Amino acid sequence: MQKKTEQQRTELKDLGEFGLIHRIQQQFAPQHKESVLGIGDDAAVIDTGADMYTLVATDMLVEGIHFDLSYVPLKHLGYKAVAVNVSDIAAMNGRPKQFTVSLGLSNRFPLEAIDELYAGIKQACRNYNIDLVGGDTTSTRAGLVISITAIGEVAKDEVVYRKGAQENELICVSGDLGGAYMGLQVLEREKQVFMVNPDMQPELDGKDYIVRRQLKPEARTDLVYDMKDVGLKPTSMIDISDGLASELMHLCTQSGVGAILYEEYLPIAKVTYDTSVELNIDPTTSILNGGEDYELLFTVKQSDYDKVKQSAEIIEIGYILPKEKGVVLKTKGEQIIPISAQGWKHF
Amino acid sequence: MQKKTEQQRTELKDLGEFGLIHRIQQQFAPQHKESVLGIGDDAAVIDTGADMYTLVATDMLVEGIHFDLSYVPLKHLGYKAVAVNVSDIAAMNGRPKQFTVSLGLSNRFPLEAIDELYAGIKQACRNYNIDLVGGDTTSTRAGLVISITAIGEVAKDEVVYRKGAQENELICVSGDLGGAYMGLQVLEREKQVFMVNPDMQPELDGKDYIVRRQLKPEARTDLVYDMKDVGLKPTSMIDISDGLASELMHLCTQSGVGAILYEEYLPIAKVTYDTSVELNIDPTTSILNGGEDYELLFTVKQSDYDKVKQSAEIIEIGYILPKEKGVVLKTKGEQIIPISAQGWKHF
Repeated sequence: MQKKTEQQRTELKDLGEFGLIHRIQQQFAPQHKESVLGIGDDAAVIDTGADMYTLVATDMLVEGIHFDLSYVPLKHLGYKAVAVNVSDIAAMNGRPKQFTVSLGLSNRFPLEAIDELYAGIKQACRNYNIDLVGGDTTSTRAGLVISITAIGEVAKDEVVYRKGAQENELICVSGDLGGAYMGLQVLEREKQVFMVNPDMQPELDGKDYIVRRQLKPEARTDLVYDMKDVGLKPTSMIDISDGLASELMHLCTQSGVGAILYEEYLPIAKVTYDTSVELNIDPTTSILNGGEDYELLFTVKQSDYDKVKQSAEIIEIGYILPKEKGVVLKTKGEQIIPISAQGWKHF
Repeated sequence: MQKKTEQQRTELKDLGEFGLIHRIQQQFAPQHKESVLGIGDDAAVIDTGADMYTLVATDMLVEGIHFDLSYVPLKHLGYKAVAVNVSDIAAMNGRPKQFTVSLGLSNRFPLEAIDELYAGIKQACRNYNIDLVGGDTTSTRAGLVISITAIGEVAKDEVVYRKGAQENELICVSGDLGGAYMGLQVLEREKQVFMVNPDMQPELDGKDYIVRRQLKPEARTDLVYDMKDVGLKPTSMIDISDGLASELMHLCTQSGVGAILYEEYLPIAKVTYDTSVELNIDPTTSILNGGEDYELLFTVKQSDYDKVKQSAEIIEIGYILPKEKGVVLKTKGEQIIPISAQGWKHF
């Protein structure tokens, strides 16, 4: 038995997600030259001695924290669990190749449920052209846990880190934002209605787009290929999992720069905007802090502006400033307000 | 909301662990030539184009299933979580290089607990000369989940699979067995005593060895190096996580062969034997079905017998038979009895 002593107790929520990651990162600087990049970006970068770098990204999804099975179909969940890891590989300008899936599940899940989950995983294999090569399956006392590790590759001169942004460069995103967050709000609202009256039909008419953004997001590997085709290499990149504000803060902190975003340029779908208004949420808040859109946020040189214009998918939303200018938003009302990051606040 | 319909329900326990793995394996044959080996061995094998193959192994450890924090120190748990993944890399005759750690934890864990866990992980980094290069940290509603993915490498002509065993080859193990299992029995017994009377001191005197085997097992990377030094390449190999019987069944099934083990040669430490007797467990059962020793089980050609003899660590316990002879044990009483596998039975 372990000796019980009075010990100091520091709550994780006081440190926060980014504080915890930073703490671990400080203690675990890579020792091998083959470990080109360790903790602190979307994926680790490994030099196996091949022409390409190997990329490794991992994410854990936990029932009750990341998903609610009362409205998330298992098939979509399987697909999404793969897509969010593929998105991390894309954020390094890389191509996904293989992945492993570890499942922890309780005995409330029958085989048919596992088959549904793997049907979604299979669909992701086909869409992203990747191989499931391993995993682990175990039980839990309650709930479902999915841990995926994705392996990818990128040419050594094409890898893009979070840290490469420089002053005056353009800040771009690969698509509209806030949709996944508003999809979640609508699903949560319908769940509440259903709990009060199980005979009510969910009102999701016209909300298909945002519900899909939440339940079945796509990793933007397509954009990685498109940019390569036109010879456009971002100077820094990250995927938007936590929200635009949070991810921009990462890019700026790691690059040692500031940034300005223009509210009027921030991309939002009409249904996202309308639903935000309907639910009394400022649409700009949905864009900045929504998260889970899995679009790519990246910076490009001003001289690459013509290449950016060749893609209808890429939207310029601001540019990089000197560090001392901070990370700010210029509102439609011409006000300059500081942007702050939010990590998870699960604890 | 999802439509509720009457559906068929097949319990996972009816399929079993190996049935589930087989089912997934059938559906996910690798599509890329770079995915040299997918699901079904200790690690996946990837050809990145380098001289060496890249190996990927992953394991998930769940509180209440794989460990009990009432007697497992977090530091040892961190070490063990890495070691079991390193062991999978060793079982491919490979060397571990990097790994990722994903943690799911509830707010009952303070920062000090996480620090303890990472102190054990750090120790494993040093002992196995590997780099922590990434991970994810999230919350759970209850309990601790640790998911680790290890990356390793092996020369292309040195990779060893489960499937290579051939008739007449020697079956060997790298050390004594059953210790981790008896350590667990002793710890569980002391926990029961403690729950009845919290003032009782645990009686672990003389049990250090088996308690250590349970709490802080070592991956046998040392043997991989030793065998390479004497030019010994196993024809098939697997690590003993579930138990000797179960792992031998895997080797035999995948190699399409049978096997005979000799009870008198099965290695067991004196304390393991004595504790088995003390707890009314047949010592041979501890050896065959105990699990978690993380020794290596492998086969070698008869012509390599001299090389085997050079290592005091390697113990010959039997040899490979034609498939139709089955997988059997010759007891000390000269009886031939069939060996059967046990996977997990968590569900």
